[in-house]
Amino acid sequence: MPQAPASQSAVITPLQWHGRQLRLLDQRLLPHEERWLTASSSTEVAQHIHDMVVRGAPAIGIAAAYGVAMAALGGEDMTVAIARLAASRPTAVNLHWALARMQRRREAGADAAALLREAEAIHAEDLAMNRRMGELGAGLFERPVSILTHCNTGALATGGWGTALGVIRSARDAARLKQVFAGETRPWWQGARLTAWELQKEGIDARLIVDSAAASLMAAGAVDWVIVGADRVVANGDVANKIGTYSLAVLARHHGVKFMVVAPSSTVDLSMARGADIPIEQRPGEEITTVRGQRIAPAGMAALNPVFDVTPAALVDVLVTERGVLHHPDEAGMRRLMA
Amino acid sequence: MPQAPASQSAVITPLQWHGRQLRLLDQRLLPHEERWLTASSSTEVAQHIHDMVVRGAPAIGIAAAYGVAMAALGGEDMTVAIARLAASRPTAVNLHWALARMQRRREAGADAAALLREAEAIHAEDLAMNRRMGELGAGLFERPVSILTHCNTGALATGGWGTALGVIRSARDAARLKQVFAGETRPWWQGARLTAWELQKEGIDARLIVDSAAASLMAAGAVDWVIVGADRVVANGDVANKIGTYSLAVLARHHGVKFMVVAPSSTVDLSMARGADIPIEQRPGEEITTVRGQRIAPAGMAALNPVFDVTPAALVDVLVTERGVLHHPDEAGMRRLMA
Repeated sequence: MPQAPASQSAVITPLQWHGRQLRLLDQRLLPHEERWLTASSSTEVAQHIHDMVVRGAPAIGIAAAYGVAMAALGGEDMTVAIARLAASRPTAVNLHWALARMQRRREAGADAAALLREAEAIHAEDLAMNRRMGELGAGLFERPVSILTHCNTGALATGGWGTALGVIRSARDAARLKQVFAGETRPWWQGARLTAWELQKEGIDARLIVDSAAASLMAAGAVDWVIVGADRVVANGDVANKIGTYSLAVLARHHGVKFMVVAPSSTVDLSMARGADIPIEQRPGEEITTVRGQRIAPAGMAALNPVFDVTPAALVDVLVTERGVLHHPDEAGMRRLMA
Repeated sequence: MPQAPASQSAVITPLQWHGRQLRLLDQRLLPHEERWLTASSSTEVAQHIHDMVVRGAPAIGIAAAYGVAMAALGGEDMTVAIARLAASRPTAVNLHWALARMQRRREAGADAAALLREAEAIHAEDLAMNRRMGELGAGLFERPVSILTHCNTGALATGGWGTALGVIRSARDAARLKQVFAGETRPWWQGARLTAWELQKEGIDARLIVDSAAASLMAAGAVDWVIVGADRVVANGDVANKIGTYSLAVLARHHGVKFMVVAPSSTVDLSMARGADIPIEQRPGEEITTVRGQRIAPAGMAALNPVFDVTPAALVDVLVTERGVLHHPDEAGMRRLMA
């Protein structure tokens, strides 16, 4: 199927600064409704992050940075505001990275206007990093490839363009994209709802699959690369990401399919030695047993709902960051990359 | 968690012959409602099979056998009746096996009463085979084990007791069951709806998981055996079963977890040389993009919906049939088993 040229790409910017307000595209309603919410205080930003109006590690960090600027503009108690933002999604690494950066600027004497410029810089830099990662990732393809991706790592999850989905966009622009398979990503359907929405807006040839169909697609030779994002990459190169990522990594290795992780360096956490140390968030079983308020499983059925899994570095063929491409990541490679 | 003793097990019999009618538990409404439908003619039986009121390869075969008896009792045109039943779910191997057996009895001069006895015999034999397979499978466990299963292979899918789920029931009775993990089995939720319902009725300690969480459970050492049923086992031991089965087989091998297939010999199709020959049913993408009439993905999103996948014999540690246990199935072993 012919791909839409880059110039026709829909520009998706789920976070927009307007005057003294942050506008956020409510991702909980996608793909059915495109409704924008506003936040006029750091409290409202924290609430929107908590409620998953905005999601995706980089996007959460950007929203929090705007929240700090908003607190300064509104004369809020900055310590309280930053603590509230930090607690909104405690496991997102980029959230703490962004808050620490804003805090450093504040301690260096930045006023409200300067803090807003810093938040805008974080936003713009994230978009630029995504573009750079897209080019680096797509640069690894010598011919048009078929890509399987998981969860949503697109413009919705970042400052724009996306991480794994950014590589897909860049591959499309470089005429190196054959087709895309998107895993629906149970239990939250990020693939079915958000990635499908972005791919459709871009006019990219894509098929949705149930997550368990990835293996037979690989066996049929239909997949060249599995490309995913990351919630945290630790010192030895192990990767925490959406549940199902590790499964794809094992399956990719078994079938000789390449496995790429795409994440900005703000996702790297060198303070943690290995993946086994990463705490895995367990969410309520009801997220599995019911769908949009409709019960699927019998009442009272127990469910185990780990949100993330850990992929050992040994299963990662290539880690793409804005600092460069790391083949076969390991502790030494990670140290070089982050030096 | 203590398991309910066998004597307290709920008896689940989704197919019941009453007078001149077949009563069927409507599996489309489970686990929310236990509604029984009746069939008074072979046409009605064929319709119920087609509509998935009854599902599971062995249960479909039993229902079809009763349908043939019903046709004879009602003075229907037998050739038309059998052809209609055969077309109700064309890919189920056991359906054709059961119809061929009824046809042979008819050609041998059996009257309507004798055909009903034959259908009842098929039903009773299936239950007995399940009990036998349950004992053989559970006999492989030297200590209590944790089992991950997929789809529904229980009493609902058979004449009673179940194939893979029958092994779980027998393991419970033999005090060889630690706990059960059930994959929800997208897109039709057989695990979340039907297996969860059966496990709950039995009081078996079980947790539902999204299908993509199986890998991380295995990596954590939480699974000793993956146990599944089969829709077709071919001459070289390759196994066609519900989408996601092959994925579990690859993951099990990677983690040193044992992989067991449980199926009556009526599921074996020696006329087919290898799994690559098995046609894989592709169903409408809407089964993935919508859940109970609610759209999940954006309108018009394409989806790929293969219902089955093929697991190569080399990934099967043991095949359990009522004829015995076959370790490391291959062509020679399959020939011995079926001789």
